[in-house]
Amino acid sequence: MQLLEATISKIPAPDAAARATAHARLERLTMPYWALGRLMDLAEDLAGMTGCPLPAVQRKTIVTMAGDHGVAAEGVSNYPPEVTPQMVHNFVHGGAGINALSRLVGARVVVVDMGVAGDLSALHKAGKIISKRIGPGTANMARGPAMTRAEAVRCIEAGIDVAQQLAPCTDVFGTGDMGIGNTTPSSAIVAVLTGADVEQVTGRGTGISDAQRQHKVEVIRKALALNKPDPKDALDVLAKVGGFEIGGLAGLILGAAAQRKPVLVDGFISTAAALLACVLAPQSAAYMIAAHRSVEQGHRTALEFLHKEPLLDLNMRLGEGTGAALAMNLVEAAVRVLTEVATFEEAAVSEAKQ
Amino acid sequence: MQLLEATISKIPAPDAAARATAHARLERLTMPYWALGRLMDLAEDLAGMTGCPLPAVQRKTIVTMAGDHGVAAEGVSNYPPEVTPQMVHNFVHGGAGINALSRLVGARVVVVDMGVAGDLSALHKAGKIISKRIGPGTANMARGPAMTRAEAVRCIEAGIDVAQQLAPCTDVFGTGDMGIGNTTPSSAIVAVLTGADVEQVTGRGTGISDAQRQHKVEVIRKALALNKPDPKDALDVLAKVGGFEIGGLAGLILGAAAQRKPVLVDGFISTAAALLACVLAPQSAAYMIAAHRSVEQGHRTALEFLHKEPLLDLNMRLGEGTGAALAMNLVEAAVRVLTEVATFEEAAVSEAKQ
Repeated sequence: MQLLEATISKIPAPDAAARATAHARLERLTMPYWALGRLMDLAEDLAGMTGCPLPAVQRKTIVTMAGDHGVAAEGVSNYPPEVTPQMVHNFVHGGAGINALSRLVGARVVVVDMGVAGDLSALHKAGKIISKRIGPGTANMARGPAMTRAEAVRCIEAGIDVAQQLAPCTDVFGTGDMGIGNTTPSSAIVAVLTGADVEQVTGRGTGISDAQRQHKVEVIRKALALNKPDPKDALDVLAKVGGFEIGGLAGLILGAAAQRKPVLVDGFISTAAALLACVLAPQSAAYMIAAHRSVEQGHRTALEFLHKEPLLDLNMRLGEGTGAALAMNLVEAAVRVLTEVATFEEAAVSEAKQ
Repeated sequence: MQLLEATISKIPAPDAAARATAHARLERLTMPYWALGRLMDLAEDLAGMTGCPLPAVQRKTIVTMAGDHGVAAEGVSNYPPEVTPQMVHNFVHGGAGINALSRLVGARVVVVDMGVAGDLSALHKAGKIISKRIGPGTANMARGPAMTRAEAVRCIEAGIDVAQQLAPCTDVFGTGDMGIGNTTPSSAIVAVLTGADVEQVTGRGTGISDAQRQHKVEVIRKALALNKPDPKDALDVLAKVGGFEIGGLAGLILGAAAQRKPVLVDGFISTAAALLACVLAPQSAAYMIAAHRSVEQGHRTALEFLHKEPLLDLNMRLGEGTGAALAMNLVEAAVRVLTEVATFEEAAVSEAKQ
C-alpha cells in the first residue's frame, strides 16, 4: 500500500510553462491558425505532461498485461480460457496483431503475466515476459469477490513497478490487455464507477450472440448484487469485480503519470483500468491519451467519464494494445509538427492580413 | 484529349480474386472475427486495387500540386497570393507541415507547379519541383471562366503524366494542394457536382470571418450564375470554376487508378479533384481512399457523394497532403496486419467455440 500511496502523491500537475512555450511556437507555424487541429492540441498536451516544450517521444513501449478470469466459467466468452496463454506465446513469437502494429511504429512490446491460468514460467525464465502473477486467474465474481483487497493492492503495485522498471527507456507508454472473459469485469467496473446501467455498458466482447450478451448482462448484475462494490473505493471495485491485468494496467498508468510519461490508453479493458486510476488519483487523467474508440459497447461511456475524445475510430475491438500502437504514430506526428515545422519568421512566409 | 481518354479506358475493376484471397487470410488471423475492423476492410481493398493478395505499400509518394487563383482578387482569403510561391519554397526546404508528416511515414513529397503566380523556374531547373505550368494562375471565375476547356484538358493530362512518371517508384500515392484562394473553386465544384447549395459547402478556408464567408458564398454564386457549368461535364466544370492544381490532382488520381495504384485523397481541395475524377471515370473511385475528414464545411458532402468514410477525423484543415501523409501509416498498418499476423493454424491458437 506504501508504493501505491507514494506514487499517487508524486503525480505532478502538467507543466504550465512548457505548455505555454509549446503553444506559442504552434501559433507561429507556417500554416493558418491551428490548422492541424488535434495534432496541435496533442503536441501542447505532451509538452505539459513531459515538462518539455519540445518533447521526445521516440522510445515507445506497449505494455500488454495478461490475466485469466474465473467468471469465464459462466460462459461469457466465445473462446476457451486456454487461449490466454496461447496468445501470450503468440505475442512472444511476434505473430499477433499487437506485434505487427508495434513493429510498424517502432514500439517495443512488453508482455506481463499478471495471473494467467497456465504455466508461463519458461517464458519468464527465458526473459521473454515479465512475471507478476497474483494467481492462476481470478475467482468467479458471480460467486464471490474476484480477489482479496490485498491482491487488488498487489496488482496495482505490480503495475507501478513495471512502469518504474521501464520508464528509463520509455518516452511514451501504451497499454494493452489479454484475457479471455475480460470484457465482463471491465463492464462491471465501468457500470459501478460511471453509474451507468449494466445493459448500456455490456457488449459482445469476442463476438457473442444476442442471447449470450443477455446472459453476460445477467452475470454482471448478479456479481454486482452479490459483491456490492463501493464506487467511491476503487480498490474495493477492483477486488470484487475486477481482474489481475486490469489492476496491473491501472498501476501502470499511475506509475507512468508519476514519472511524467504520457500513456496511450487502448480500448475498453484499458479504459476500465484508466477509470480505476482516475478514481484513485484524479490528477493521473492528465497523462492519459485515449487512443481509439472501440466497437465494444460501454467504451463511449467510459471515455466520457474521463472527458477524453479518442484519436481514432476504426471499428476495432481486439485489445492487446493495438489501438495504442496505431495512435503512437499520431503522438509522434504531433511532436514532429511542433519540432520540425518552420515558423513564419524562419521560412519568410507572409502572414494573414489583419 | 487522347491521353485522358486512353487513361480512362485503361482503369481496371479491382481484382476480385486478390480480394478473395486476402479476405480468406484475414478471416483466419489469430483474433476474434474481423476484430481490427476498418484496417481489415482496407487491407482487402488494397489487395483488390493492386491485384496482389499480399500488397506492397512501402514506397509512398505525396504529390503536392500548387496553383494560384484569379478569384483571390475578390478577397476570399485571409492570405495574400504571394504565399503560394513562398510555401512552395517552404516545401522544397522541408519546413512545412507536409514535410514533417511525410518524413515521419517515410513518404517522398513531390511538388508540382501547376500554375503559380510567381517565378519558380529556378526550383524547376534545380530539379526541386516538377513544372507543369498552365499559366500564372487562373482567371477570376467571378468575371468569366477560370480557364479554357483546352487548358482544363491540359491540367488533367499533366496530372496523368505525373502519375505515369512516378508510378514505377510508387506503391501508394497521396494527394496534396497549395493555392491561396483554392477552397473557393473547390466549393464551386462540389456545389455543381453534388447539387448541394453553395451555402452548405462553403467554409472558412484559412480562417475567414462570418462576414467574409458570406461574401465568399456570394462570389461563388455569382461565378456559377455567370459561367453556368454543366454538372454532367467535368471538363466544363473544371474550366469554368476550377483551378490548375485541382485539375492536376484529378489527373493524378486517374493516372494512378489506371496503373492500379491506391491514392490517399487528402482534404477538401483534393476531394473536389476526386469528384471531377469520379465524374470523368466512375471506376476510378475504387482506387481512392479518403484520408481524413477536414474541418472545411463541404467536405462531408463531397465525401458522401463519393460514398467514402474517411480514416481520420482530427479537426485538420491545412491541405498540402497532410491528411494523406498521416493516413499512410494506416494503409501500411492494414497491410502489416494482412501480411504479418499469424493465422490460428500458424500459431496453434484455439478457435472460437461453434
